[in-house]
Amino acid sequence: MHKDFLYSEIANKIAFQIRNGVLKAGDRLPSVRILCQEHGISMNTAKRVFLELEAQSLINSKPQSGYFVNHLSSPKLPLPETSRPLSMANDHEPDELISKVYGNMGKDDLTLFSIGIPSGDLLPLAKLKKEIVQSTRRLREGGTEYESLQGNLRLRRMVAARSLAWGGNLSEDDLITTSGGMNALSFSLMAIGKPGDTIAIESPCYPGILQLAINLGFKVLELPTHPTTGIEIDALKQAIPKINLCLLVPNFNTPLGSCMPDQHKQAVVTLLAKHGIPLIEDDVYGDLYFGSQRPKCCKSFDKEGNVLWCSSISKTLAPGYRVGWIAPGKYKDQLLKLKLVHSISSTSIVQEAVANFLNTGRYENHLRHLRGTLRDNYQHYIQAITEYFPAGTKMSRPQGGLALWVEFNKRINTTALYDLAMKQRISIAPGRMFTLQNQFENCMRLCIGLPWSQELNFKLKQLGNLAKMM
Amino acid sequence: MHKDFLYSEIANKIAFQIRNGVLKAGDRLPSVRILCQEHGISMNTAKRVFLELEAQSLINSKPQSGYFVNHLSSPKLPLPETSRPLSMANDHEPDELISKVYGNMGKDDLTLFSIGIPSGDLLPLAKLKKEIVQSTRRLREGGTEYESLQGNLRLRRMVAARSLAWGGNLSEDDLITTSGGMNALSFSLMAIGKPGDTIAIESPCYPGILQLAINLGFKVLELPTHPTTGIEIDALKQAIPKINLCLLVPNFNTPLGSCMPDQHKQAVVTLLAKHGIPLIEDDVYGDLYFGSQRPKCCKSFDKEGNVLWCSSISKTLAPGYRVGWIAPGKYKDQLLKLKLVHSISSTSIVQEAVANFLNTGRYENHLRHLRGTLRDNYQHYIQAITEYFPAGTKMSRPQGGLALWVEFNKRINTTALYDLAMKQRISIAPGRMFTLQNQFENCMRLCIGLPWSQELNFKLKQLGNLAKMM
Repeated sequence: MHKDFLYSEIANKIAFQIRNGVLKAGDRLPSVRILCQEHGISMNTAKRVFLELEAQSLINSKPQSGYFVNHLSSPKLPLPETSRPLSMANDHEPDELISKVYGNMGKDDLTLFSIGIPSGDLLPLAKLKKEIVQSTRRLREGGTEYESLQGNLRLRRMVAARSLAWGGNLSEDDLITTSGGMNALSFSLMAIGKPGDTIAIESPCYPGILQLAINLGFKVLELPTHPTTGIEIDALKQAIPKINLCLLVPNFNTPLGSCMPDQHKQAVVTLLAKHGIPLIEDDVYGDLYFGSQRPKCCKSFDKEGNVLWCSSISKTLAPGYRVGWIAPGKYKDQLLKLKLVHSISSTSIVQEAVANFLNTGRYENHLRHLRGTLRDNYQHYIQAITEYFPAGTKMSRPQGGLALWVEFNKRINTTALYDLAMKQRISIAPGRMFTLQNQFENCMRLCIGLPWSQELNFKLKQLGNLAKMM
Repeated sequence: MHKDFLYSEIANKIAFQIRNGVLKAGDRLPSVRILCQEHGISMNTAKRVFLELEAQSLINSKPQSGYFVNHLSSPKLPLPETSRPLSMANDHEPDELISKVYGNMGKDDLTLFSIGIPSGDLLPLAKLKKEIVQSTRRLREGGTEYESLQGNLRLRRMVAARSLAWGGNLSEDDLITTSGGMNALSFSLMAIGKPGDTIAIESPCYPGILQLAINLGFKVLELPTHPTTGIEIDALKQAIPKINLCLLVPNFNTPLGSCMPDQHKQAVVTLLAKHGIPLIEDDVYGDLYFGSQRPKCCKSFDKEGNVLWCSSISKTLAPGYRVGWIAPGKYKDQLLKLKLVHSISSTSIVQEAVANFLNTGRYENHLRHLRGTLRDNYQHYIQAITEYFPAGTKMSRPQGGLALWVEFNKRINTTALYDLAMKQRISIAPGRMFTLQNQFENCMRLCIGLPWSQELNFKLKQLGNLAKMM
């Protein structure tokens, strides 16, 4: 393995142990010398491991003493258990609850812990406006022309170029643009599934995916999912005879923030390919890693074109632009046909604007900044939750993304907590939104994509107090 | 009836007789005095009738003699017969041909008689660019925020206000925005139909509708359609027991350019409502009338919310913006749900830009100009086709819209003509594209949305010569 990756591989392993409580707050880490011996690496590589863990705020160094696990990074709050949804597919869609919570979007007088996108304060709005203006100048006929069916060529080139960072090795011709990430998932599901099919997903799962699957007439099989490593491979294996397709969010999914280890990704891809079951991979959060390196995707291990890799800029740059894409593997013809008959093409101007934003390197700068902010926010949230939330609270350890998953003790019903919190102008996303079954009623998702402030800290305290009173 | 409408009602009747050859080129029209007596109208109203017919270039006045049917407006070429598709639904989709012809889009070195949108030369590009820039300034967070689910409020208000002109009387709350007209049709079909359903449509029909219906698993029933009055009511009546839904383009549909008389619209709405069969009405060409007045829609006669009225700005203003809308009647909840789960929302910036363009009155100005150009183009095409095309050629009498339908004698295969014409850098839309059956093989559609020029005249001559040689 190339040494550039070696240090981060080792750092990731240690980070994993810290996040999962194998290494606890205050624990001393092995010395640089020991680390060299254990892993057969150079002093320099070992030092980079520690620098990386420090950068992630997971450890701190004490002069003359060595490195210690940070108190914040290894929260005292335990991790939620692996989810145990029922093995049968069912469909008690939490539609009303979802509508109620989504209905709060855009309300300025609310603290929106419930949203799943970064706040506008974290986005490069002025630069984006300039890109829009430039696009109307650069595009033939000011962007009034139909975009080509496959989508903006420069955008596809940039997405392909960026795929090298996660082992995608895509070419521009492998990609089709869409009107946002949900549109990519919708076309993918319509291309490979039909009403009555059974689809395997993570549990808890993004409500939009649940609703889309139900709307298309699929039976939904929610599978046990670990809060840090994602879907349980054994559970997926056992489900194989029952399922026709699979949709996963392997990197920093919402609400758990889990990230499937590479071995898991590879195992899932191999398993599904062997049984001819297509895999739709939603990678909208993949660029929002807290560590040093962009995680790989299932698509990185896809040799047979069996993975439909979907992503967008909605969670990182501009939700309202509706710019997304798919690398549909061997399903490209079906995808192009679907895009044609359902939409003709995507909006020209916004695709061109995003293409240019990526092309000038502004996107990488922005992402670096955004990741730093989210990582800091995460630490602030940990501190506040540890301090203010009731005894028995458990909490996820997101390794990236925009979401924190909080599990209260069984007595606290978060759908009721939602109503209480709204009276104090606080909106949360109750756990029941993330499943079609009767589970997660004592859980909630908190968005960490809001700019941190004393006000936010106070709102978390209020929320904690409400929970304590229940 | 209000006298403002009376004159246009009478003018429309006379126009209809001229276009259908009841009144022939050179025929003298009744005098103003006779017209007053016949219809019980005032002199002023009668004069307005003749002014209106003159404005449409259908008649001309000769001093001291009266009014005569214009030679151009009543072309010598006969009208094609009412189409007679087979009564059974079938699905020989002309996919390859459609891909081939659509693949020519955007190629600068071709004369694109094959496209179905107005040329960029006919669009207000500079003004639209300004609207885009203004939108990024006016929208919260520069348009990076998700648009509300139902869509831009100002846009919906403007579309609702404009609906008064055709008797729609819609309110902003009746409307949902979409990403273009095809997206409106797609959501409508998905909301009310399911795989295996049979859908009744006009024949010939826009290829996008054929492909969409097949893609959604519908059986397609093509119904006999008259080139000026649209779908045959009796044929629809007989089909009722077989069909689950109906999709019509009542105003200036492509390729025929027919416009259903109000009585037909009303009859269809009543018939379908009686049998609980929903009607999707595609009205994307409705604003492109050659006469004095915006035609009504089926939606104008919809008392039960059974009509899903779909339209867009793609045929009039900016195809690449992807801005459309639906008034879904009683199917509003299903439509909102579909829009949410398949797309979350539409692109914010382009909706705001179009809303403002409509709001400032620029749209009405632009439409007035565009309609005049299309009407003039139509006259030029008539002249060229009459002069250059082989004996036995028949031609539609569009009363608006962007398309001319040409029927050659049976020996001339337009799919073969397409290949010949392409060698001379001319692209046409062969008739076989507009049906799932083996019909219209001696027909073609010509777009009249190109700026008229001697070059275009020459290309029509070349095309005529090629046809003569076959």
